[in-house]
Amino acid sequence: MREIGIGIIGGGYMGKAHAVAMSVVGAVFGTALRPRLEMIAASSPDSAARYARDFGFARAAPDWQTLIADPAVEAVIIATPPDTHHAMAQAAFAAGKPVFCEKPLADTLENSRAMVALAEASGVAHMVGFNYIRTPASQFARQLLADGEIGRVTWFRGEHTEDFLADPDAPHNWRCDGMANGNMGDLAPHPVNAALALMGPITSVMAEVETLHTDRPGGRVTNDDHAQIMCRFASGVLGHIYSSRTATGRKMGYAYEIHGTRGAIRFDQEDQNALWLYKAEGPEATRGFRKILTGPAHPDYAPFCQGPGHGTGYQDQIIIEAKDFLTAIHERKSVFPTFRDGLAVAQVIDAALTSARERRWVDVPQT
Amino acid sequence: MREIGIGIIGGGYMGKAHAVAMSVVGAVFGTALRPRLEMIAASSPDSAARYARDFGFARAAPDWQTLIADPAVEAVIIATPPDTHHAMAQAAFAAGKPVFCEKPLADTLENSRAMVALAEASGVAHMVGFNYIRTPASQFARQLLADGEIGRVTWFRGEHTEDFLADPDAPHNWRCDGMANGNMGDLAPHPVNAALALMGPITSVMAEVETLHTDRPGGRVTNDDHAQIMCRFASGVLGHIYSSRTATGRKMGYAYEIHGTRGAIRFDQEDQNALWLYKAEGPEATRGFRKILTGPAHPDYAPFCQGPGHGTGYQDQIIIEAKDFLTAIHERKSVFPTFRDGLAVAQVIDAALTSARERRWVDVPQT
Amino acid sequence: MREIGIGIIGGGYMGKAHAVAMSVVGAVFGTALRPRLEMIAASSPDSAARYARDFGFARAAPDWQTLIADPAVEAVIIATPPDTHHAMAQAAFAAGKPVFCEKPLADTLENSRAMVALAEASGVAHMVGFNYIRTPASQFARQLLADGEIGRVTWFRGEHTEDFLADPDAPHNWRCDGMANGNMGDLAPHPVNAALALMGPITSVMAEVETLHTDRPGGRVTNDDHAQIMCRFASGVLGHIYSSRTATGRKMGYAYEIHGTRGAIRFDQEDQNALWLYKAEGPEATRGFRKILTGPAHPDYAPFCQGPGHGTGYQDQIIIEAKDFLTAIHERKSVFPTFRDGLAVAQVIDAALTSARERRWVDVPQT
Amino acid sequence: MREIGIGIIGGGYMGKAHAVAMSVVGAVFGTALRPRLEMIAASSPDSAARYARDFGFARAAPDWQTLIADPAVEAVIIATPPDTHHAMAQAAFAAGKPVFCEKPLADTLENSRAMVALAEASGVAHMVGFNYIRTPASQFARQLLADGEIGRVTWFRGEHTEDFLADPDAPHNWRCDGMANGNMGDLAPHPVNAALALMGPITSVMAEVETLHTDRPGGRVTNDDHAQIMCRFASGVLGHIYSSRTATGRKMGYAYEIHGTRGAIRFDQEDQNALWLYKAEGPEATRGFRKILTGPAHPDYAPFCQGPGHGTGYQDQIIIEAKDFLTAIHERKSVFPTFRDGLAVAQVIDAALTSARERRWVDVPQT
Repeated sequence: MREIGIGIIGGGYMGKAHAVAMSVVGAVFGTALRPRLEMIAASSPDSAARYARDFGFARAAPDWQTLIADPAVEAVIIATPPDTHHAMAQAAFAAGKPVFCEKPLADTLENSRAMVALAEASGVAHMVGFNYIRTPASQFARQLLADGEIGRVTWFRGEHTEDFLADPDAPHNWRCDGMANGNMGDLAPHPVNAALALMGPITSVMAEVETLHTDRPGGRVTNDDHAQIMCRFASGVLGHIYSSRTATGRKMGYAYEIHGTRGAIRFDQEDQNALWLYKAEGPEATRGFRKILTGPAHPDYAPFCQGPGHGTGYQDQIIIEAKDFLTAIHERKSVFPTFRDGLAVAQVIDAALTSARERRWVDVPQT
Repeated sequence: MREIGIGIIGGGYMGKAHAVAMSVVGAVFGTALRPRLEMIAASSPDSAARYARDFGFARAAPDWQTLIADPAVEAVIIATPPDTHHAMAQAAFAAGKPVFCEKPLADTLENSRAMVALAEASGVAHMVGFNYIRTPASQFARQLLADGEIGRVTWFRGEHTEDFLADPDAPHNWRCDGMANGNMGDLAPHPVNAALALMGPITSVMAEVETLHTDRPGGRVTNDDHAQIMCRFASGVLGHIYSSRTATGRKMGYAYEIHGTRGAIRFDQEDQNALWLYKAEGPEATRGFRKILTGPAHPDYAPFCQGPGHGTGYQDQIIIEAKDFLTAIHERKSVFPTFRDGLAVAQVIDAALTSARERRWVDVPQT
Repeated sequence: MREIGIGIIGGGYMGKAHAVAMSVVGAVFGTALRPRLEMIAASSPDSAARYARDFGFARAAPDWQTLIADPAVEAVIIATPPDTHHAMAQAAFAAGKPVFCEKPLADTLENSRAMVALAEASGVAHMVGFNYIRTPASQFARQLLADGEIGRVTWFRGEHTEDFLADPDAPHNWRCDGMANGNMGDLAPHPVNAALALMGPITSVMAEVETLHTDRPGGRVTNDDHAQIMCRFASGVLGHIYSSRTATGRKMGYAYEIHGTRGAIRFDQEDQNALWLYKAEGPEATRGFRKILTGPAHPDYAPFCQGPGHGTGYQDQIIIEAKDFLTAIHERKSVFPTFRDGLAVAQVIDAALTSARERRWVDVPQT
Repeated sequence: MREIGIGIIGGGYMGKAHAVAMSVVGAVFGTALRPRLEMIAASSPDSAARYARDFGFARAAPDWQTLIADPAVEAVIIATPPDTHHAMAQAAFAAGKPVFCEKPLADTLENSRAMVALAEASGVAHMVGFNYIRTPASQFARQLLADGEIGRVTWFRGEHTEDFLADPDAPHNWRCDGMANGNMGDLAPHPVNAALALMGPITSVMAEVETLHTDRPGGRVTNDDHAQIMCRFASGVLGHIYSSRTATGRKMGYAYEIHGTRGAIRFDQEDQNALWLYKAEGPEATRGFRKILTGPAHPDYAPFCQGPGHGTGYQDQIIIEAKDFLTAIHERKSVFPTFRDGLAVAQVIDAALTSARERRWVDVPQT
């Protein structure tokens, strides 16, 4: 067991989540590396000081450059807006420090590519924050697929639907501006990452991207509300991905259903502790989708609780992520999703945007 | 109250369902016209005789021509394979008899168009057998949409998924041959009809159509297994339709979800007595999808049972259909879905097939 | 195939349901005996005439005595209030005619006992109308239990909950008066019958019976609103039964859950086409309650529809009941639930009432 | 913001949970008191040392007496077997230190009473670890009830069902021995506490308590497997509570349903982020149980995540508990459930055991 000094850039939604996760991951998982909340940076020294106090960091940084340069900071977590990621990651890799970067990897495809090059040249651990794929249920789904439990896959449908901008009268806010804050920048990467994680590479896409409510009280909306993507996987399987911030009634609709020749899987993050599995075996009369409640028999559950069905939550995904990042640092082995995996998501998104614009099937470059 | 002599052509799956429905619709709904099971025709005189005896018809017809010509047959139900529909409907209309025709309307788009012309020239009632849209739940969904209960609609997703050919080792059968028996001929028309009924006309489509298991024990498969259609409605709304006979685990996945600016609707025929409604009203803390159990407060439920939640089933849809057909005859008013509505479905299917072949968006001609 | 003249006494809720069922059971099940709607009797000759016309009976009877005496009436269905059952059954058995009697068997325990004696002396078929146990799902549950599929049973919980009198301001109506119309007379017999059908005899009970809303607009309530029964089965298993007409939100809460040493079963009639089965077998990680959708692989489903998951409804239960009654007549074999089975229910109800009054465990006499 | 030294006795299941919670509660909730993991004691100095290292405590105590006496330990968490609680609490109160004690409060009713006296004489904060009632959903349920949202309550049904000893062939373990480790000692207190929290005091009970599998490989079972309790609340409402460790298929069946004159509530901890609410208002046709997903609009959710439906888990309940304990210490106000509330649970359990033994209704002494 060895301490490791953690520096977090950003103290908002995700910054707090990572601070909490790093506070506790050692106790939960008994990690070899034990995080020490060394330093936090934010948009101003004042807010950094406030976050440091609130979350229990040893020190606040006047700016992110100082944080990265500080010798006691041994690993960097970037939890700031996408257009800041590239410069921060560059500095961190230059300093030889492992980087965990929130999704999406970057604001532009070019920056994503550049970050992959920097990451892979650095020789240190790097990881992108697609947290939803880390629930015990989704990890188990990946395992079932890898083990061929549902046979040869024949169809994938994924979605990520929320409704925080479903009301056309909801006032304009920061989410209404800038590609990276729209549905394609913020939400679509989640189900695309799920699709890649569960199904492997996507080779071509045909998409529709749409802004439903172009004018809101307080301003014009410059990014998209929802989008659908028909896709073809490298495995030959057909699929569909839908993402929306206007899906009235849906709060955490990170969901997928996968058909195979010998079974099927269904999952909806709104009931994140259940995975539905159908097996085409045994007498017809007793077949049905079984609702499997996650428990100690599933990946990364037992450290949270010895009882099955007792449930993990949103914050626990971030703790699992923290554990995997620490392990990657400790074992000097990359862990999914690496920066390259983050680029793969960005390339699907980019191809989908092109497809929607040009109303045609578009090939996705393979990373 | 007046008797009406019913002739049914075909005594298989749907022929039986219509015979049962006509036996009982008068008692259930107290219809003005009271059906008398006058005559049934089938693929041979022997089978017609057997069906007549089994279902309680007064007489068996040696062939369908005789049935249509018989003066005691006052309305004709066509429940035979699609490639027979045109000739039968033509004869029935020529004889001035109302026609109920099973879906899909015809085997080819040309025949569908011809049948619409004949039907509309005839001046008698005509109707196509898209039965699923007649559950009390789906009728109520239509009502909610028409009343603007969920505001302006922003997204539609529909599907019809079953798994009767999901096993690649299932032997070749009659369903594996002929466009009309494939997924696009047999299953896809259901969710397309649902989309049209709930959302109005579709103006363009972008589709993928696929045969997953091209060789089966006993023969080559010449029609499709599953298909997805991205679509744009005349209302401007974006949508997606998926249909499959290889959706392992799904038995009656006639399902849809519809987002609106003030609410949302979800339905899945596997639990056909429940409609899920979300209303974006009242305190945030008490919002949620409500599971409405159908009951006497919903369309066409009360005649079956005075108790809500007691449930209707598959056969009851056919009885509702029979009631509506008898009413159409009695009131000399057409009832959805008319032959023209059946053609609208065929045109979407046809455009989707073109789109899949040519890998491009295709406009749907409006009927 | 032979015709049988059916006489129905009562044309209300259940009278209609049986008329509909008898109209169509031959076509659905291909029964050996084919019902002919011969005669219906009601509270007045006028209403009988109306029912006859509405439901398609050949003749209306001026009174029930005439109906029973009519030589063309070969089987009698009693669908009138409980206090009329005894006299009608007595007359029918005296005339040597099979009797189907709606539940509860009689208004008093004495009458129930007398009816069993008459029925068993008569040598003809007799049956009580506990229809809910005849869904394909509940029949399958009985089969699973009989086959030991969930091992040795260790717990039973049943309920029948509705909410038609949940509102304390709902006006007084006929249901508020008379033991037989209260919860213990009308609703509780259903889950008690389910318990007996699924689990076998009940040997002792400890109950609470309560009128929640004693005064309603228009009058005083003289029967009970809800009741709970702790029970011990002859098998040694412990159980609990709850019934209520004030269960706000519940519309058809005929539900049970049964634990066994190797599995468990859950059912709720509000989703009557699903049976939930848990099997304690295979890897822990893939265990879960499976939602089995009823289909042709389950009892009495296929005659309604060849497709699994397409669903049966309330009316279909009555059709299944009609089939079983006709079979009982034809094969001269009694079918569950016989009058004796109806008496067994009445004895549990009676013991529960005693228990509630005397606040002690009460033994149930075995029939 | 002020630091507070925490001492935890016990490092197993619950000891770890509390260590994790205390590590992170400050960052999550921004508590005024910030816990410092000062000292942990366990069954041996070695295991204490291991726990201290694993969970990040500053020091390990050679025994619990030393921990309590240590001046840097300012609050004590007891997470050891019930028969040790009394002595530990006594010592802690004697030292003037606030005590959080795991449930059940003590091994015997006498000890529970004694601990209440000590706690109330001490003047310091005390709390019992009934964690499940602290989910955002159950807190919200309490709020809805307190606000009269479902009108006057008419029925309560609660359960806590798991299946960890459902298999009769599962070997004898420590849970099979000693009243406090059986169902009545370990599981039943949870739904009893839920009943008290949601419904208020219970005045009388009628119970059955049973050991289903008396002999297991490796030894005789000396405590109970499952139990049911009919109860009457001080409010006059009737209720039923079931608890079991042999409920095959159930993993976290902490569930309740509550009927009121104007609505109803249903909850099942297996889907702990959903609360089902029925409101008897608006048109009949749009009524239904709504599935409310917990979110920032619900108690104690927002600190974990800004997104509704993203979910909290088991560990988060313990963090909420830690927050409430710290607040109680800080504000010198007791917080539900106090030791007296823990005693109330013990008195219901004790009365139920008496009732089962004597087969009669038993009054519950009010605390």
